[in-house]
Amino acid sequence: MTVRRIEVRERVMERNDVLARDVRRRLDDAGIIAYNLVSSPGSGKTLLLERTLAGVGEELRIGVVTGDVQTQNDADRLAHHTDRLVQAVVTGGACHLDALQMQDALDALDLTALRILFIENVGNLVCPASWDLGERAKIVVLSVTEGEDKPLKYPKMFQQARHVIINKMDLLPYVPFDIERCVAYAREVNPSLEFFRVSALTGQGMEDWFRFLKESAWAGSPV
Amino acid sequence: MTVRRIEVRERVMERNDVLARDVRRRLDDAGIIAYNLVSSPGSGKTLLLERTLAGVGEELRIGVVTGDVQTQNDADRLAHHTDRLVQAVVTGGACHLDALQMQDALDALDLTALRILFIENVGNLVCPASWDLGERAKIVVLSVTEGEDKPLKYPKMFQQARHVIINKMDLLPYVPFDIERCVAYAREVNPSLEFFRVSALTGQGMEDWFRFLKESAWAGSPV
Repeated sequence: MTVRRIEVRERVMERNDVLARDVRRRLDDAGIIAYNLVSSPGSGKTLLLERTLAGVGEELRIGVVTGDVQTQNDADRLAHHTDRLVQAVVTGGACHLDALQMQDALDALDLTALRILFIENVGNLVCPASWDLGERAKIVVLSVTEGEDKPLKYPKMFQQARHVIINKMDLLPYVPFDIERCVAYAREVNPSLEFFRVSALTGQGMEDWFRFLKESAWAGSPV
Repeated sequence: MTVRRIEVRERVMERNDVLARDVRRRLDDAGIIAYNLVSSPGSGKTLLLERTLAGVGEELRIGVVTGDVQTQNDADRLAHHTDRLVQAVVTGGACHLDALQMQDALDALDLTALRILFIENVGNLVCPASWDLGERAKIVVLSVTEGEDKPLKYPKMFQQARHVIINKMDLLPYVPFDIERCVAYAREVNPSLEFFRVSALTGQGMEDWFRFLKESAWAGSPV
């Protein structure tokens, strides 16, 4: 049973990788940098994006593709904050976005209007690690309420990512979370990870995040 | 591609359901009540279980099967707190426990020593909703830091569950979380849900939870 399941899964993955290459080519041709935001449910991805759109959305021509299991609440929230393009994908119960859904989302977007495209993946620290969406990089959003051991418990996600945003820094005084240990655990599974420490709610650390996005957009080079 | 994936998934699910029936029969024969704890990563399942084992583990003859993607950190933490049996299942990257793994876990446990068996599922609000493990009931652990909209965003999990433990109540003053709205959203997708409001960290509300477990153990009837 186990062997069979893995074989089928690998065939589906291979097809996803082919589609993801097409997505990546289309994004490159349009000069768009795509970041795939992955996290647990409730880590604060949507608020982070709301504040990012409010702060630098116009300047950096930011668009968003949201992936939700059932609702399009996130897309509705984001649409209030920007006249940039927001495209909702409802996965209908599936636990991750896939490259086929990204192709459909790109068809629905005006790619000439965008410079940075965020993909807000389904809240899930396991499955989205395995699905290439044609992004330039995966960024893990991890909140300080989740515990510093998450990089060890969900290593594939941290191996696949290039950046980690440690969010909800305003709650640090109230939770048993050792931030240095979290960073050390994450570097244990992926030594090249880069970190941001922010509170999307209070704005703490958001300037560093905006600066990174500006440098990404201006340089146009892989970061 | 989508149709094919669903068909394969359904065949795998059907086989899981057959195995889950066998697990349920073995648990019933041994007089064991099993609760499947499901949640996002970092909701506090392990600390809740640590405190539960410390509080009523001996009295209620509680054992635990932990499901982790890679590590057995949770099982090691729990083993410090009890001489009840703790059995670790490492899913090797899979995003949920399945009934086959439960069968293996039961083989490794002394079922005659147990009255209540907790299954600490992989931290994931999507996939474990679809996998019957032979449990009496699923219990969602939701922390107040995750946002009150989670029942709407991950409805299948809340439909499948019988109880919700709202955890980290000690953080309520510091987060934008409307607990009444959360309860209303959850009842929107499943009107029969029952709630506990606890802080495993401070002990707040834990007596209600222990009382429920005692009543479950003493009655021996489905709760």
